[in-house]
Amino acid sequence: MAEKIYRIDMSSLTVSSEDVPERWKGLGGRGLTSTIVAEEVKPTCHALGRYNKLIFAPGLLGGTTCANSGRLSAGAKSPLTGTIKECNSGGNAAQHFAHLGIKALIIEGVPQKDTFYSLHVDKNGVTIQEDTELVGKGNYEVMNTLTQKFGGKIGILSIGPAGEMRMAAANISVRTRDDYIRSLGRGGLGAVMGSKKIKYITIDESDGPGVHIADPEKFKAAAKVFAKALLEHAVSGQALKQYGTDVLINILNEVGGLPTRNFRYGQFEGHAKISGETLYDVIVSRSGKPSHGCHTGCVIQCSQVYNDAEKHFATSGFEYETIWGLGANCCIDDLDILAEADNLMDDIGIDTIELSDAVAVAMEAGVLPFGDGPGLLRLLDEIRTGTPLGRIIGAGTAAVGKIYGQTRVPVVKDQGLSAYDPRAIKGIGITYATSTMGSDHTAGYAIATNVLKVGGFIDPLSKEGQVALSRNLQIATAFIDSTGLCIFVAFPTLDNPVVFPAMMDMLNAKVGVAMTVDEGQSLGKEILLREHEFNLAAGFTNKHDRLPEFFEYEPVPPHNVVWDFTGEEIDSFWDIK
Amino acid sequence: MAEKIYRIDMSSLTVSSEDVPERWKGLGGRGLTSTIVAEEVKPTCHALGRYNKLIFAPGLLGGTTCANSGRLSAGAKSPLTGTIKECNSGGNAAQHFAHLGIKALIIEGVPQKDTFYSLHVDKNGVTIQEDTELVGKGNYEVMNTLTQKFGGKIGILSIGPAGEMRMAAANISVRTRDDYIRSLGRGGLGAVMGSKKIKYITIDESDGPGVHIADPEKFKAAAKVFAKALLEHAVSGQALKQYGTDVLINILNEVGGLPTRNFRYGQFEGHAKISGETLYDVIVSRSGKPSHGCHTGCVIQCSQVYNDAEKHFATSGFEYETIWGLGANCCIDDLDILAEADNLMDDIGIDTIELSDAVAVAMEAGVLPFGDGPGLLRLLDEIRTGTPLGRIIGAGTAAVGKIYGQTRVPVVKDQGLSAYDPRAIKGIGITYATSTMGSDHTAGYAIATNVLKVGGFIDPLSKEGQVALSRNLQIATAFIDSTGLCIFVAFPTLDNPVVFPAMMDMLNAKVGVAMTVDEGQSLGKEILLREHEFNLAAGFTNKHDRLPEFFEYEPVPPHNVVWDFTGEEIDSFWDIK
Repeated sequence: MAEKIYRIDMSSLTVSSEDVPERWKGLGGRGLTSTIVAEEVKPTCHALGRYNKLIFAPGLLGGTTCANSGRLSAGAKSPLTGTIKECNSGGNAAQHFAHLGIKALIIEGVPQKDTFYSLHVDKNGVTIQEDTELVGKGNYEVMNTLTQKFGGKIGILSIGPAGEMRMAAANISVRTRDDYIRSLGRGGLGAVMGSKKIKYITIDESDGPGVHIADPEKFKAAAKVFAKALLEHAVSGQALKQYGTDVLINILNEVGGLPTRNFRYGQFEGHAKISGETLYDVIVSRSGKPSHGCHTGCVIQCSQVYNDAEKHFATSGFEYETIWGLGANCCIDDLDILAEADNLMDDIGIDTIELSDAVAVAMEAGVLPFGDGPGLLRLLDEIRTGTPLGRIIGAGTAAVGKIYGQTRVPVVKDQGLSAYDPRAIKGIGITYATSTMGSDHTAGYAIATNVLKVGGFIDPLSKEGQVALSRNLQIATAFIDSTGLCIFVAFPTLDNPVVFPAMMDMLNAKVGVAMTVDEGQSLGKEILLREHEFNLAAGFTNKHDRLPEFFEYEPVPPHNVVWDFTGEEIDSFWDIK
Repeated sequence: MAEKIYRIDMSSLTVSSEDVPERWKGLGGRGLTSTIVAEEVKPTCHALGRYNKLIFAPGLLGGTTCANSGRLSAGAKSPLTGTIKECNSGGNAAQHFAHLGIKALIIEGVPQKDTFYSLHVDKNGVTIQEDTELVGKGNYEVMNTLTQKFGGKIGILSIGPAGEMRMAAANISVRTRDDYIRSLGRGGLGAVMGSKKIKYITIDESDGPGVHIADPEKFKAAAKVFAKALLEHAVSGQALKQYGTDVLINILNEVGGLPTRNFRYGQFEGHAKISGETLYDVIVSRSGKPSHGCHTGCVIQCSQVYNDAEKHFATSGFEYETIWGLGANCCIDDLDILAEADNLMDDIGIDTIELSDAVAVAMEAGVLPFGDGPGLLRLLDEIRTGTPLGRIIGAGTAAVGKIYGQTRVPVVKDQGLSAYDPRAIKGIGITYATSTMGSDHTAGYAIATNVLKVGGFIDPLSKEGQVALSRNLQIATAFIDSTGLCIFVAFPTLDNPVVFPAMMDMLNAKVGVAMTVDEGQSLGKEILLREHEFNLAAGFTNKHDRLPEFFEYEPVPPHNVVWDFTGEEIDSFWDIK
């Protein structure tokens, strides 16, 4: 059975399906969501208004047996940044969509009535129903209720109170098969879902057509090479499995690039208390799970289950960026408080990176002291209930800066910077500045080559080679994000020459074509340029591809370096065609 | 004695003076502030950071006996809009500066120490002193304290709590000779003054050199023609004097262009209760002053003194836009509450137009009900004390929209629209869209020709002729704003051919040159283009010259018309050279 596109028009509360147009057939994940946004969304539209569209799409390899191919892409115009936006997440929704033969779900319009709805997706298509029972509830209660109703195999996408209130930092939660939450985190797509008044989407893949593989033998062989390479690489096969992404705390602290106290310092005194090594010990001592996959078929297993002191579940998917953001950057060196906050953010449905930056700027403004863990938990409660302060924080870092008249506001295109100081690790600064998504470390993870020495080594403190590094990574990432593969496959891809060809072999075996490695890279370029064009049409210029000025005049210890790229140097990023 | 420029460097707490460079000699007011901003301020800088500059300049005719020439211009990059910004105000500060031979005050840098300062300007120059006694106080207390200290002839510029807290809607207050307050209202320049940690500026013109007039006889003759024309015109000589600017309530209601309930309707049921005619009757019955000039030498006298029911002073400078904004647009049809709010806003130091739009959007979001007068007064108290809700409102309309996830947010370049619906009065819509200042009705007051039939008549409901109308008005206004003349001189200028030549005669007689009317208009064009260039360099594009999309799909009663200009039509505004 041929794959389908489903359109859900929330203005008329109708659903239609269509065959996949020829020009979209070779696209999936980010490539597809960004192409649909670029083709169908008015670039200058209000992101929470009737003209925006919210698109979900599994990757090109989604639903197959390929390792780590279960990422789900969501795309729209972002209410946080005003740019095009794609974010992707684990959980099992992508695989459910793929097994149902669904290439993309396109949610359009906004309802006329002021009420909430839910969508149900199964082999018969998509149905909409008015559904207010779970409005106001956190994501865990939503998922528990729906799992009881539909059984443990159901796929769920939902928004928490933050998304309902259309907060610009709201995310969309994705259920994992074992009842944990992963997030379509960045750029406020939960607010877009909230503006379309959809509280949740359930996906029942039963009796779906499944995924068609044109050449199963070829696919199987390539998948084996691929999985083996993932497992053999020091980062994807060992470090991430044992310590999770939080392995980076000690590494970044060591290189002086761990943003601390709202990006004032590059090292955090309390780093050992929140490091991946400490996290591992605590998890093991409390009978948690140090390794856990966020979706079926993950072999990297960088997630984990963290228990509290009484050995009860505290949180899962406890990422480096969250632990950095509330830990080093807000100076809260207590893993238990950070775990509680992480779980609350999953429940409320808010991006942990944006939230961390927002809280750090609020601390800078004197709203609460740096290091105030209980104060952080109170703030999260204010977000849940939508107090004015909760709404300020929930609107993200730039909003906090605006509301409190702050100048040290680490954002690009109004999205908060992540866990890597751009002055001390200059390659990631280029990615922050130029990413089509607003500041986003995942768009071109220069930490690989600047710090982890994956794909060679480029001195993080030197400007030389950084623009080309970020450009190559962003192109490769745009491609990988289109396959449904986890970004961490980039580590073996950069170091092991068999990986990219194996990926292409799987794609070709699935679709029955013969795309070369070069063509794969060209696709990455095309996607990036399409996204960039959208942003230009939305009113962005090279003036927005800049870091905040305080990075230029405030040297960051211990290296005491500033951000010293000229505008022209940054702009050369787009010499791409 | 030649005029001087004073530079106040708040980073080093030093003052320097310099001769006026040749290229700035023919400039004053907006022409001068915008030129200095364009030449010296980095367009992409943070408006509250070290690279912004705050400039005060009297107009070219400032300090002379010319009627209505006492407007003071302030310029900077705006923290509200991110664009270049000039606003001008009555009060007597411009005349004091002019009498001291001061062409402009340029305030640069930000202090290193976290404390407040005051500036004192007199015949010996400018002095800076650390001064925290009045920090936290409202503008009235500041002015009363300083008047007691320096005597009743002192000129004062000050910020209230809103400016101290760097709220993006904060204004700068200017003392009138009779202890009332006028405001440098729009664009948040009070926040810039707050970022430079200056609570107030006192100006003592005693023993200043005064204003040099090259040809006093010629000047006197032209000034006479000019004043006579002002007094003879129906708008500037009669309507504004009797009813103040609030005369417009009934007129705009009649044409269906009075934005009501956050721009949902074009007519307000309660219009008669807040009209200029009612205002006049109430003022007279309570022994107030229906006519009052905002600065020495004003012959139009559109200001007034409004007393409360006990015949005690309630407010002054009670403008149409304020009464519209809180009255029709927030549906509060009670002049006494509006007067109390107006006075509180003067004291807190916040722009009444921005505040009105912000409150209406907050009402739309359900923060308080439409029509809730006591709720409005509570909100103002929250702004004064800087609660989270107070800071949200104080950050302006766009911020309220962002924080509450609203789509009906009437702003252009993040500045709130004013008291004229752009769908029903299309000329003003072009001004809102294209003004270099963000949405600003004063930048090209198309109401004159669309509604008041001054300078001819162009049908407000038709698109025809509106772009040219707005363009011509914006050019003329840029020129008038450079002279120090009140914008209301535009009414007789448009209808009476003697006025513009009389203005030029005064300018030429003062400076001793021979500028033609055409050259005056060229100067207006140059200023506008210089401002536009700054905005382009700051990252603005034609995509920002657009009204919010809801105006395009929501017809406004009673005419049930939408905003129907295409982007290309709007962009033709800049076919100006």
